[in-house]
Amino acid sequence: MILMLICSKCGRKFEEKFILRCTCGGTLLVKRKYDSFAPRKFLDIRRYIDYLPVDEKFLPSLTPGITPISKISDEVYLKLDYLQPTGSFKDRGTYVTVAKIKEEGIDEVVIDSSGNAGLSLATYGMAEGIKVHVFLSYNAKPEKIARLNSVNARLHFVEGDRMRVHEEAVKFSERTGIPYASHWLNPYFLEGTKTIAFEIYEQIGIPRYIFVPVGSGTAFLGIWKGFKELLEMGEINKMPSLVAVQAEGYESLCKRSKSVNKLADGIAIPNPPRIEEMKVALRETSGFCISVGEEETLAGYHWLRRNGFFIEETSATALAGYWKAREKGLVKGSSLLLLTGSAKSF
Amino acid sequence: MILMLICSKCGRKFEEKFILRCTCGGTLLVKRKYDSFAPRKFLDIRRYIDYLPVDEKFLPSLTPGITPISKISDEVYLKLDYLQPTGSFKDRGTYVTVAKIKEEGIDEVVIDSSGNAGLSLATYGMAEGIKVHVFLSYNAKPEKIARLNSVNARLHFVEGDRMRVHEEAVKFSERTGIPYASHWLNPYFLEGTKTIAFEIYEQIGIPRYIFVPVGSGTAFLGIWKGFKELLEMGEINKMPSLVAVQAEGYESLCKRSKSVNKLADGIAIPNPPRIEEMKVALRETSGFCISVGEEETLAGYHWLRRNGFFIEETSATALAGYWKAREKGLVKGSSLLLLTGSAKSF
Ligand SMILES: [Zn+2]
Ligand SMILES: [Zn+2]
Repeated sequence: MILMLICSKCGRKFEEKFILRCTCGGTLLVKRKYDSFAPRKFLDIRRYIDYLPVDEKFLPSLTPGITPISKISDEVYLKLDYLQPTGSFKDRGTYVTVAKIKEEGIDEVVIDSSGNAGLSLATYGMAEGIKVHVFLSYNAKPEKIARLNSVNARLHFVEGDRMRVHEEAVKFSERTGIPYASHWLNPYFLEGTKTIAFEIYEQIGIPRYIFVPVGSGTAFLGIWKGFKELLEMGEINKMPSLVAVQAEGYESLCKRSKSVNKLADGIAIPNPPRIEEMKVALRETSGFCISVGEEETLAGYHWLRRNGFFIEETSATALAGYWKAREKGLVKGSSLLLLTGSAKSF
Repeated sequence: MILMLICSKCGRKFEEKFILRCTCGGTLLVKRKYDSFAPRKFLDIRRYIDYLPVDEKFLPSLTPGITPISKISDEVYLKLDYLQPTGSFKDRGTYVTVAKIKEEGIDEVVIDSSGNAGLSLATYGMAEGIKVHVFLSYNAKPEKIARLNSVNARLHFVEGDRMRVHEEAVKFSERTGIPYASHWLNPYFLEGTKTIAFEIYEQIGIPRYIFVPVGSGTAFLGIWKGFKELLEMGEINKMPSLVAVQAEGYESLCKRSKSVNKLADGIAIPNPPRIEEMKVALRETSGFCISVGEEETLAGYHWLRRNGFFIEETSATALAGYWKAREKGLVKGSSLLLLTGSAKSF
């Protein structure tokens, strides 16, 4: 097995260490070669351990699960990926990331997410004895701050927008030498989220379409990478079409709207660093991008809540995007919609 | 396959209909004969569909999952059974119950739980078009009332304690003819919770001990029944010892304490109707009962929260009970602890 990271921009190769970017500025992906797809007997994420770049002895004890799929009509499936320990699919990425940083002997990291990714990393950090510095805006919602406090995150407040928060986190990391563990960049994070693809495949085969809320693209690219690996292993011979669902005003793949969807804060990321890889994923899978507004998101949200899916608004964009695409005649065949994050209180 | 219900008290047999008690007053269990244990390929509760008394076409679409198990030390495993759609293991029992009442053409039911069981049934009812009347005390916590309201439960407030609420629910059911769907009595509920045993067995084999918070005993008896069926199928040749963890002041199996543990409201049930079956389960598995107070519960709660398990206080009794039993020298060997309910906000 060849163990390496490869730059998506220039193709340069690196050893499998905890690094976030190529010297050319490009983003990295883990590249390993697998012969065949043979899940282990585990009935949790460790089912796919042989396809993850981790050493088993560093795995966190807070194990992400295999999330159920609900069939809501003849052609529509929902994957309840919010049913994870900290309430979002991010735990998959965090699980692999934390195993890797433990392996490297890192015991302190910096991030700049006050949302699900921050909560996930801070929680696993607390459990595994890793100090987690979280940079966030003074404008962060009080409930997010309280949540991060409750899992012992070291909070650093920054005056300014999302971009300023990011810059301050990077500066702090450079000044202190404490590694920056951005889930936007970190290639190990996508190794965790690719297990979503493996599960979908084992659970319902290959749906014609997969609808994924897309901001930084950590779920979207993970699913792409997972199915691509199944293809390379010869386990499948076609890819599902990946549909990127974005929020109006924050589109990076769709055309940028003038109106702004403020409900989907989990995907309010106008300039994600992995944008080129996402374009490749859309092209390779004959997928497309669709953007939804506040009213559409709310309609999806209420439908989901009424049907017992206790999700946050960002997750509802998947359903809103599906409805919109179907109305436009863009979907013909089965669709799986990823529900990414839970209502944090119900 | 023989399809029937059997009375645990007098042994009388009934057809598999939605009935809650024998004519003698005894409680009922579903009794079927299975030849061998061969789970289906599903990676959710439907994995065990061949061992459930349901017709597939009536299954709710909100599918309970297979919950992950975390190993927290050489001999201690936690099953994260709170990672279910409505935040507790009750969804397993509700899933089978709702399938059965749909099969019988019932579209309106009465219950008397303002906790996890009520939330679970009201949610599945809302999703499946079944009207759910919930009887509860005026003293119910405001957050519980809000939660039930949000899932469209028809609330009936009663002046008085838990027993009075129960009586009023039964009276309402008798007066209106709307079936009473108590999870304490309903034999189909235990069919759902028995899948916990099947999962544990597939996930880690047979632990020496299983610690379960016990009030009405719906998790405890389900686990007992599940392992017993595995034994009867010849799949296993010994049972795990089941440990009933109870809250001080509300013991039904342990000696009743004078002090009262007010933190574990999920198991604050001093006179559960299935008490005789629970005694049989303890005897048959060489298990025991252990009771925990508030301080012990809090210690367990804080340990779990610090380690990333976002559970409610009742779940923490499992860990508190384990610690206490180990200190008393009562456990030698591996132990699995069932975490039953989630923190409803985090
Ligand atoms: Zn490069
Ligand atoms: Zn009887």
